[in-house]
Amino acid sequence: MSALSEFSLIHHYFETLTPQREDVLLGIGDDCALLKCPHDHVVAVSIDTLVAGVHFFADVDPQSLGYKSLAVGLSDLAAMGATPAWFTLAITLPELETNWLKSFSQGLASLAKEHNIQLVGGDTTRGPLTISIQVHGFVDPKKALQRSGAQLGDMIYVSGCLGDAGAALQYQLNQWDDAKLTDQDKQYLKQRLERPTPRLSLGQSLSELASAAIDISDGLLADLGHIVEKSGVGARIDLDKLPLSSALSKIDRKIAQGFALESGDDYELCFIVPPQNFSQVEKDLKGQVTRIGMITDDKGIYYLDKDDNLSPLIGIGYDHFAY
Amino acid sequence: MSALSEFSLIHHYFETLTPQREDVLLGIGDDCALLKCPHDHVVAVSIDTLVAGVHFFADVDPQSLGYKSLAVGLSDLAAMGATPAWFTLAITLPELETNWLKSFSQGLASLAKEHNIQLVGGDTTRGPLTISIQVHGFVDPKKALQRSGAQLGDMIYVSGCLGDAGAALQYQLNQWDDAKLTDQDKQYLKQRLERPTPRLSLGQSLSELASAAIDISDGLLADLGHIVEKSGVGARIDLDKLPLSSALSKIDRKIAQGFALESGDDYELCFIVPPQNFSQVEKDLKGQVTRIGMITDDKGIYYLDKDDNLSPLIGIGYDHFAY
Repeated sequence: MSALSEFSLIHHYFETLTPQREDVLLGIGDDCALLKCPHDHVVAVSIDTLVAGVHFFADVDPQSLGYKSLAVGLSDLAAMGATPAWFTLAITLPELETNWLKSFSQGLASLAKEHNIQLVGGDTTRGPLTISIQVHGFVDPKKALQRSGAQLGDMIYVSGCLGDAGAALQYQLNQWDDAKLTDQDKQYLKQRLERPTPRLSLGQSLSELASAAIDISDGLLADLGHIVEKSGVGARIDLDKLPLSSALSKIDRKIAQGFALESGDDYELCFIVPPQNFSQVEKDLKGQVTRIGMITDDKGIYYLDKDDNLSPLIGIGYDHFAY
Repeated sequence: MSALSEFSLIHHYFETLTPQREDVLLGIGDDCALLKCPHDHVVAVSIDTLVAGVHFFADVDPQSLGYKSLAVGLSDLAAMGATPAWFTLAITLPELETNWLKSFSQGLASLAKEHNIQLVGGDTTRGPLTISIQVHGFVDPKKALQRSGAQLGDMIYVSGCLGDAGAALQYQLNQWDDAKLTDQDKQYLKQRLERPTPRLSLGQSLSELASAAIDISDGLLADLGHIVEKSGVGARIDLDKLPLSSALSKIDRKIAQGFALESGDDYELCFIVPPQNFSQVEKDLKGQVTRIGMITDDKGIYYLDKDDNLSPLIGIGYDHFAY
């Protein structure tokens, strides 16, 4: 079999991998895909690239990598309150390894099925392992969650637990460990790094309730920083409220809070709720979300220290060029 | 300046680089862009990746690279008869070189302005130089040009001249030269490789006239091969009709025809016209297009040899993994 036929096989292989949707008039296999948008919604799009050795270990389990490559994009749709519809995949591979590709595709497809999102196009090229995925979703433009809507007096919430993915990464890089963690704890943390859960149904619920939202990809401080900057406000965080998993609750509190504040890859949502919606959020989303602070008019992000003084939190978040 | 602030600057820099369109409700700088589609059209999308050392020389002029990165996607829109609207850019860079990025952006922006296409999102990551661009255009679904519409008795046409980009590449790789070519000829060929012209207005005219179309990115034989395969037909080509530039007309005819048949990167259109539209195409598009053959019911692609026998043309086209 020539390399070209193998290459064509990939197209063929990906063609029926994901759910088939009625709004896809033409999918993989022509110059373009043809996609039908609903009349009362706009299309939300986001593209993300994962590079081997930068965003993931080159020897990572390919099934987890396939899952995460799509999860990262779905998390952006969640942060807008959008419903997933289609995605494209541009994958650059050093060589054609059928087993690797099959596992990668399985991880991708399992998450695609869960969220009814169809692969509608792509490009496969030879080169250093790099994955770019663009996701497309639908959202009512009047309800789309943006970063710029936070106002003085609003409350700051996050979903799930923070810091798990960062702890897992530091552990895998041999830069951190803690004797209190069991093998099960470490397995849990690894799962959180490799298989983050995009908070899509939460994002959709929030579109009626939140004034602003972002997904936590670069760390809480960096991402909340985008909200306060775009909204022209400040934030005060109660460090003791930062939600920690049972694994991170075992370790030194300051270290755990550091992970929760500064490490990325959790893909939880950070969102802002105006006063009239506090009670509904606390009631409807109980157990899913935690109130961690409030929006203020001091520019920047602060916390109350042990002497009840406001101290600035200086976080750098995940820097794609400083990693 | 920290690496993070530099990184943010890129976003800021790209934000106003390209035309600002009214159908972009939210552009660069949030979790997703929000895009409004026209009611009577569908969205045509295509994603392409260019990898340094595979699709271009790492030391290529960055302005040409920026131009070509977008041209490749626009050519896919042309092949569907679509009108460009938006694009996203995922760029992976070994390091932040401001001058390089400025030139790259200028090349990109010049073509974006020409075709009123707005950059609406992107991702910038560190790693081996790789550029993925997804283009989005609008097309009336009843008029979209697909690969599958060719029928027995239709005629095969191409736009422009073929083989120039392939000749330029072989020359640059020191794999071919011809003493008959002047410096001006070589400059012309290089320009054709580095700055291909996406045939957008031609593609839009063809949406009423052609039964199938494709852009020639992998070589005429490979790309016409996609049309005959998808349409379940065959093709007969008149080798003497293959349109050659004045530069390639100077060299050995067989070598020139080889470039025209087998080398990629020309980004001309190959399209198929049903009998009732022959005269209109010949009249309206005179000078822009050349009839090179006809659709037959012999599966495969053939030519008439000097003894008037049908001989198969076996071309491999551009293979992303065999390059």
